[in-house]
Amino acid sequence: MKANKVTIHDIAKALDINSSTVSRALNDSPRVTKKTKEKILNKAKEMGYKRNLLASNLRKNVTNTIGVVVPRISRHFFSSVIQGIEETAYLEGYSVIICQSLEQLKREKNILETLAANRVDGVLMSISMETTNYNHIQELKQRGIPLVFFDRHPNISKTNNVLINDFKGGFDATHHLISKGCKNIVHFSGPQELAIYKNRLQGYKQALKESNIPFRNEYIISSRLMEHDGVNNIKELIAKNLIFDGIFSANDLAAIGAIKYLNEIKVNIPKDVAIVGFSNEPISTVINPSLTTINQPGFEIGKTATDLLLQHIKNQHTSLTTETIILESNLIERQSSNR
Amino acid sequence: MKANKVTIHDIAKALDINSSTVSRALNDSPRVTKKTKEKILNKAKEMGYKRNLLASNLRKNVTNTIGVVVPRISRHFFSSVIQGIEETAYLEGYSVIICQSLEQLKREKNILETLAANRVDGVLMSISMETTNYNHIQELKQRGIPLVFFDRHPNISKTNNVLINDFKGGFDATHHLISKGCKNIVHFSGPQELAIYKNRLQGYKQALKESNIPFRNEYIISSRLMEHDGVNNIKELIAKNLIFDGIFSANDLAAIGAIKYLNEIKVNIPKDVAIVGFSNEPISTVINPSLTTINQPGFEIGKTATDLLLQHIKNQHTSLTTETIILESNLIERQSSNR
Repeated sequence: MKANKVTIHDIAKALDINSSTVSRALNDSPRVTKKTKEKILNKAKEMGYKRNLLASNLRKNVTNTIGVVVPRISRHFFSSVIQGIEETAYLEGYSVIICQSLEQLKREKNILETLAANRVDGVLMSISMETTNYNHIQELKQRGIPLVFFDRHPNISKTNNVLINDFKGGFDATHHLISKGCKNIVHFSGPQELAIYKNRLQGYKQALKESNIPFRNEYIISSRLMEHDGVNNIKELIAKNLIFDGIFSANDLAAIGAIKYLNEIKVNIPKDVAIVGFSNEPISTVINPSLTTINQPGFEIGKTATDLLLQHIKNQHTSLTTETIILESNLIERQSSNR
Repeated sequence: MKANKVTIHDIAKALDINSSTVSRALNDSPRVTKKTKEKILNKAKEMGYKRNLLASNLRKNVTNTIGVVVPRISRHFFSSVIQGIEETAYLEGYSVIICQSLEQLKREKNILETLAANRVDGVLMSISMETTNYNHIQELKQRGIPLVFFDRHPNISKTNNVLINDFKGGFDATHHLISKGCKNIVHFSGPQELAIYKNRLQGYKQALKESNIPFRNEYIISSRLMEHDGVNNIKELIAKNLIFDGIFSANDLAAIGAIKYLNEIKVNIPKDVAIVGFSNEPISTVINPSLTTINQPGFEIGKTATDLLLQHIKNQHTSLTTETIILESNLIERQSSNR
């Protein structure tokens, strides 16, 4: 390709200036005036100059790329977080590459190796349901790659996290069911290794306590919270002859499974059983009855996490303290609890 | 980190063999027997040996990484294609990094530069709605990076493509509406620069023709096929006093918008207007009435495209001919056309 053969020296010659000025301009150095930069960039474009990005980045040891690791891109919550990440990163001149662990620790390990090998400038991450061992994460930290967790974070010290107030979310969901007259409230929980599910459960317990409703262990059913888990949870409750009039599910997907199955066996929602989900997936507005849920500000989480990561990328040599930022969720009332 | 300091020489010493044998084994060279490879890999693991993946890959000029470029990860069709890609790539030892163009040509260009700079071994791509200029794609080809398009492909010669039979999909959708007694069938189309939308429109025309229904240009409404476009299309039809009793939408999202708006203004679906979408998004089973649609085999497309890409990656020095593989779609009948 001819275009590739244009060098900074050709540009310097064409403009009758120094090659090092051209190089500085192309690297966006503050030592070159805006006007000169523009002139050089225009000439470079006109002449079809192509930077050897790889060489240039290897030299500068940056790639202007952020790696994002999520359990599944197909979940609305994660795709809305990614939207917040993309918007923020793009404005700052960073590209985003996304990898999914598919909830598997083994894949998550591979991904972190790939991202490190690709020399990403930083990583935004939400861990898998299997991630109970954090060696791969510690290794990434030790390599000095800035890292911010969002939503699902590991139980290790000195990490940057952007979380929502899961305790309050769990409390609000349960309190809402109690306010609707529910006395026997089941909780569909996720793997307890993940702090978010632990905290939602704690919020549930606190809401019961404040209303003097005794906590019953048999009302807590843990699973991976897939749609079929919601179905199975209901079957299990019925098989065990447990009476229930409210369900707080730690995600919408399992709540949707429960709604579909309860509809099938002609249990009236919300009259017989009121249901609250978590995360406000788009399907929750479309299911019949529509699902009351806790809305997580996905876009905001992505934006905040990216801002925090970029601070750490840009100040790698001054050691910033790590921080945890907590964003608030809110309950959206729909038909599934409207009684 | 201590683990990082173990070298191939340490492993060679521990096993009392040649360092170059260790190196070959770690690079999976066919010149080392399976038994020796196993012995070396086990020892390497035991000693906590970590390859410097970047150095090793720069040397071999491979990264074992496949880049995927899609318009939006949040579309079910694309996330199911990506699932097929991940499964296939993972089994072959490749990592997958995903980037989204968000339907913008500018971002798509950036992404291809990032992927090239990250030295991915190959790229699987579905182009944006804005992609009417293919310079960035030609450049990637000229750099010798193997490339396979799926679903949305550019109009350039010598490309590898995995497509579905969009003509037949459009034909089947329209023919189905005609078989349900529809006489005035509107078509929601996408940007005509994309062959998939052109072909769906051609299928629509052919189905009308075979049933001797005259084609009317005012029944074709082109948009970006977002949910709000479906709403606006209906408003436009009503404003223009156009009579219609059937809609074939080139995607589900715009069809969902139409259903929601028609429900709102109390038009009966399917009695007054029957509707068929395209791509079988999960929401199409949940909307009321549920949406008849053309099912695209997303997982299969992803798997086939990855197989094709890996063939090209592995045979880069023998020049394989390019090929286009066409997979079939099928119509799923639901309530929105059940009359």
